[in-house]
Amino acid sequence: LIQTIAWHDGRVRYIDQTRLPGAETYVETASWEEIAHAIRTLAVRGAPAIGVAAAMGVALAGRAARALPVREALSAVAVANAGLASTRPTAVNLFWALDRMRRVAEDGGWTSGEALAEALAQEAVAIHTEDLEQSRRIGEHGAVLIPEAARVLTHCNAGGLATGGLGTALAVLYAAHEQQKRLSVFVGETRPLLQGARLTAWELKKAGVPVTLMTDSMAGAAFARLGFDLVVVGADRIGRNGDTANKIGTYPLALLAREHGVPFYVAAPSTTFDPDLAGGQEIPIEERAGEEVMGLAGVPTAPPGIQVWNPAFDVTPHALVTAFITEGGVIRPPFPGRLPSKWTAPAAVRSQP
Amino acid sequence: LIQTIAWHDGRVRYIDQTRLPGAETYVETASWEEIAHAIRTLAVRGAPAIGVAAAMGVALAGRAARALPVREALSAVAVANAGLASTRPTAVNLFWALDRMRRVAEDGGWTSGEALAEALAQEAVAIHTEDLEQSRRIGEHGAVLIPEAARVLTHCNAGGLATGGLGTALAVLYAAHEQQKRLSVFVGETRPLLQGARLTAWELKKAGVPVTLMTDSMAGAAFARLGFDLVVVGADRIGRNGDTANKIGTYPLALLAREHGVPFYVAAPSTTFDPDLAGGQEIPIEERAGEEVMGLAGVPTAPPGIQVWNPAFDVTPHALVTAFITEGGVIRPPFPGRLPSKWTAPAAVRSQP
Repeated sequence: LIQTIAWHDGRVRYIDQTRLPGAETYVETASWEEIAHAIRTLAVRGAPAIGVAAAMGVALAGRAARALPVREALSAVAVANAGLASTRPTAVNLFWALDRMRRVAEDGGWTSGEALAEALAQEAVAIHTEDLEQSRRIGEHGAVLIPEAARVLTHCNAGGLATGGLGTALAVLYAAHEQQKRLSVFVGETRPLLQGARLTAWELKKAGVPVTLMTDSMAGAAFARLGFDLVVVGADRIGRNGDTANKIGTYPLALLAREHGVPFYVAAPSTTFDPDLAGGQEIPIEERAGEEVMGLAGVPTAPPGIQVWNPAFDVTPHALVTAFITEGGVIRPPFPGRLPSKWTAPAAVRSQP
Repeated sequence: LIQTIAWHDGRVRYIDQTRLPGAETYVETASWEEIAHAIRTLAVRGAPAIGVAAAMGVALAGRAARALPVREALSAVAVANAGLASTRPTAVNLFWALDRMRRVAEDGGWTSGEALAEALAQEAVAIHTEDLEQSRRIGEHGAVLIPEAARVLTHCNAGGLATGGLGTALAVLYAAHEQQKRLSVFVGETRPLLQGARLTAWELKKAGVPVTLMTDSMAGAAFARLGFDLVVVGADRIGRNGDTANKIGTYPLALLAREHGVPFYVAAPSTTFDPDLAGGQEIPIEERAGEEVMGLAGVPTAPPGIQVWNPAFDVTPHALVTAFITEGGVIRPPFPGRLPSKWTAPAAVRSQP
């Protein structure tokens, strides 16, 4: 289990993922603004982890306002909720977690700021605990799909660092590894921010799972020359038809998988499914600053003054997805009507594309 | 025209491409070993440019040996030829150029080392001149395929820097640009060595062609959301059936092009076609040191002690190629029997996979 994020004595402790793998740095904060900043700068990232962090951010706001009259405390909590909602647009788990925190605040009839703060902290911790349990079940359901001695391709980081501590795609691989299935895992470095190289390679190495790093552009050669038994990735938002937004570069891997007859699995908790969206065209895709592509760790890699395009996610059409692995089990096509739909976002928390 | 490489007064002058775009550094040398080193380290790269550089390297060896008795001079030239052949295995232009230099040396009946040196220098300059003329004609034939206001995707660098000074894929775009076709060109950065970001963006910017940089992993999103009118890339070696080895990451672009109904063109001179190879499975693919993937410009990007896979090229199956653009014209399928086959490598200069 990775100590991605934890609620600890009224403070939040998280690992600063921007400093991995060079340094394992833990940050403790009592400020929801600092949590928002951590999400925006990808110090905390991965759809489920963003949800957990945002919930804890709201809990921090409640705690900071606990000495205020209830009305003012509720208002401070609402400000934090809105601020956290504006950090990143694509991962729907963020809006789901914030909506859950909002319901706790609004359903209260609170007699004191102290009681409100306590309830918010409990809810945030519950969201974290549920996330860990979901990861465990995703691993359990997914491991069944992993053959003995499988060569597996994953992308970006859908591991402990992307969740409350165990993962989605990597939870499946960890479970198979525990069953002694002798995996070999390939991961693309995941430019521009290198979550594959920096985070997934680090996690898998730590867990003793053999991992091979390549550039994202090498996946085609790997399918053609080495072959894979399966691909498993995480997700940031999944539409009603199964169209899946995930880290940029996922869609070409799905296309390669189909071309080479390799199953392509998406591992995600039910909180990543967005029943409000018919399909992938409606998923808001974050575009980030061009500097991420124009250099690496402060070293410029391109001439100044050119255009840059830097979308953080792409959409894999549902037809390329072999199955979804959720905490409720493995879901195969046809997807419409079979995907989790436990939550519909109220207008107030919908992201603005 | 880019001053990629030139024969100048018994010396070779080349631009050190490893230092672009930060610094425009020209190196002058009289040593064939230094040319071999430049090819090995990618200071000179791109299949046609490697051929030109290798020919000039042999000419340098001839010049260094010009005061020796003919027999010793020929032996020194043969050593250089073999040394240059061992630099990189995939680009067939290298073996073609070296074979041509070998024929000049062996066909001689030389009366002096001086005469041999002069003939080798003339042959190397001729190879360079022919390369420029081939590029010009590739541009001419290819420009016809470029629609007005086209959005074009290319990969790596198949420009002036990859050839004697004008390019293959980029020669097509330069010709269309001169015809005022208002192009917009996208290029992936081309990890690990960033030829797209460092070289193609630099060349196109210099030529006034609007260029947008993205990571290699963004091509899928670009096809799906922005759309392209065509893809045009270069090649390092093409088999008899049209299977094409080119910079790693090319094959997934060809697959995306087919999926989205976009034409995929390969621009290459006849010297890149290898009639000895039936298909792509036989093309020797260079694998380079893992450090290229484990970091960037000296900055580590992954935890130490993991496995790395770093093939420099992939093979695009002929079925994904819409047409080849050569100096002789545009060649459409079925390819067998229609592709250039002017040269068959003698066993002595075949690369060792």
